[in-house]
Amino acid sequence: MNPITFDLVKKDARTHARRGVVHTPHGDIQTPIFMPVGTQATVKATTPRELKEVGAQIILSNTYHLHVRPGEDLVREAGGLHRFMSWDRPILTDSGGFQVFSLASLRKIREEGVSFRSHLDGRAMFIGPEESMAIQQALGSDIAMAFDVCSAYPCEHREAREAMLRTHRWAERCKRAHTREDQGLFGIVQGAFYADLRVESAKTLADMDFPGYGIGGLSVGEPKGLMYDLLDEMMPHMPENKPRYLMGVGSPDCIVEGVYRGVDMFDCVLATRVARNGTCFTDEGRLVIRNAQYAHDFGPLEEGCDCYACRNFSRAYIRHLLKAGEITGARLATIHNLRYLLRLMERIRAAIEEDRYEEFRRDFFARYDMSRNF
Amino acid sequence: MNPITFDLVKKDARTHARRGVVHTPHGDIQTPIFMPVGTQATVKATTPRELKEVGAQIILSNTYHLHVRPGEDLVREAGGLHRFMSWDRPILTDSGGFQVFSLASLRKIREEGVSFRSHLDGRAMFIGPEESMAIQQALGSDIAMAFDVCSAYPCEHREAREAMLRTHRWAERCKRAHTREDQGLFGIVQGAFYADLRVESAKTLADMDFPGYGIGGLSVGEPKGLMYDLLDEMMPHMPENKPRYLMGVGSPDCIVEGVYRGVDMFDCVLATRVARNGTCFTDEGRLVIRNAQYAHDFGPLEEGCDCYACRNFSRAYIRHLLKAGEITGARLATIHNLRYLLRLMERIRAAIEEDRYEEFRRDFFARYDMSRNF
Repeated sequence: MNPITFDLVKKDARTHARRGVVHTPHGDIQTPIFMPVGTQATVKATTPRELKEVGAQIILSNTYHLHVRPGEDLVREAGGLHRFMSWDRPILTDSGGFQVFSLASLRKIREEGVSFRSHLDGRAMFIGPEESMAIQQALGSDIAMAFDVCSAYPCEHREAREAMLRTHRWAERCKRAHTREDQGLFGIVQGAFYADLRVESAKTLADMDFPGYGIGGLSVGEPKGLMYDLLDEMMPHMPENKPRYLMGVGSPDCIVEGVYRGVDMFDCVLATRVARNGTCFTDEGRLVIRNAQYAHDFGPLEEGCDCYACRNFSRAYIRHLLKAGEITGARLATIHNLRYLLRLMERIRAAIEEDRYEEFRRDFFARYDMSRNF
Repeated sequence: MNPITFDLVKKDARTHARRGVVHTPHGDIQTPIFMPVGTQATVKATTPRELKEVGAQIILSNTYHLHVRPGEDLVREAGGLHRFMSWDRPILTDSGGFQVFSLASLRKIREEGVSFRSHLDGRAMFIGPEESMAIQQALGSDIAMAFDVCSAYPCEHREAREAMLRTHRWAERCKRAHTREDQGLFGIVQGAFYADLRVESAKTLADMDFPGYGIGGLSVGEPKGLMYDLLDEMMPHMPENKPRYLMGVGSPDCIVEGVYRGVDMFDCVLATRVARNGTCFTDEGRLVIRNAQYAHDFGPLEEGCDCYACRNFSRAYIRHLLKAGEITGARLATIHNLRYLLRLMERIRAAIEEDRYEEFRRDFFARYDMSRNF
């Protein structure tokens, strides 16, 4: 009995958008969903009760970061990641693969796994499929991700194919190494920027029968149009009865386009990262609250938003806090951005339920100013 | 009719400790009380609802800082400081005097007032009694403080006397300049480290009949014993039916000793400042949560504390957050330290009500490790 199961509740009548429920040991997740990122066992600048208030159903945490500090042994000793960080809803951990490729230095990839030096202290480290499984099982997330090989953009077909084939072999090794019964393991589709490889990867992994699938290696610098094209090509080959998670993607436009193509889950640090710098999400695009034009603006960050920041504070006040370097400014912008995305997902789910996702998408882009996009 | 009135509810049977209520336009304050400091229109790393949750009845904000940024005109335009920062309970603003003396550069003090350069951008500025009143009236705090002259420690008797006499003349000017009817103006007793001057200052200001009194210029580097001696000498000359506010003092030991001598109000940045660095208040003295000894400590910051941090997170987790540079770590330590002081005040008020403040003070110091003091 797999600890992670998926109910496809409804398909939109005219698009590939889907409405579903992911069942996990820590409760259900209504999809499509955005997962706030809690890299170091905290979603930056927030507390668990604020995450619940903005409507977070599941958060993501980073295997690589927790392995480097404080180490999975401490987290296990604390009773697992949920207890360590006092979050009783579902958690997904990534595999560490992407971080090893993007953060660590002196990286050497062999069939066995990846040798690298820690970005914190230069310590020599090694993570392969078995190590990634051991760490994620120690952390005790609800959903673990298979350890994969990421390619940069651009990359040659031959190189992309080798990385994909290794990813498939590593997926098999992850499956064998994974034993924890209250944790589900998702496979990751790779294939870089080549539709033929993406289709091959989707089929191969489908045959391996994971309870869910990540789509990895996208949104790494390629044009968004290319990402959408690749999704169009590969999606028909992804199992319909399993959740599909587009990894590391979380700008409003990409979420709307991803759902349109059948994606169920998203995560990204964008919302929380830009918030701390004073950039806020709105239906009209980004709002740079530090700009002088908001100095005497006593309206909320976004009219109609129900978040704590918008219900209680003005643009002028939040601008003052951010310019003064106050933590409270970063907090309020973070709360708004997370609530923005989670409310966007609520609107998306409602639209799918009412078979009007096509209109929703059209109206969204009619209002969204792409020149103020991310 | 003065907008600030004081009811002396009860005197402890065997000490000078007092239990009172300060009535303000934004509600009552039960004394003795500690006021969290919101320098730049925010108590660092907190939100108003968290301040209510830790039991804050009144907060302090800094006139100098708000004058420099964002400027009192913006705050007035926002509807006053309460609306600007979304805090509907009482606010006390200091006069700017102490900040001008401690932060600004190229300071020149004349009878008229103080010329200086802003610590932010070096801009030439001037604040005298009338300017301080104008700024505080624009901010719209419940309690404004008279603009005073602060002396450094040590300082000659002659110099201290001149600063005190000027403070008295400025207090008269503040009184004349102050017209706002929903704001009370407190005088400030000065006299540096000389008991004769402190007594003279207390008597002179008592004759001017302010609705409350600050005790300024202490805790600026002198030995704590000297501060307590000065309080012993001056307190009999402070009006009994007016609140007494020991400015800038807020370590646990000084609060217990101040209340013992008849102080009603305290403020200090200590609790919030050290929190962001990972130093926590406990009944046994400071706890430096970054220390290695807490790496595997899964107990709360302080056993028995009812704050959000202690109810939900371990020392090991908060240590991890602080070492990882996470804002959430600073937030949780701040919540704990504020709750610690406000709970200390609750215990102090209960002890006075039951005529057992002498025992409370004895028990407090029996447990408090002065080698772990601030």
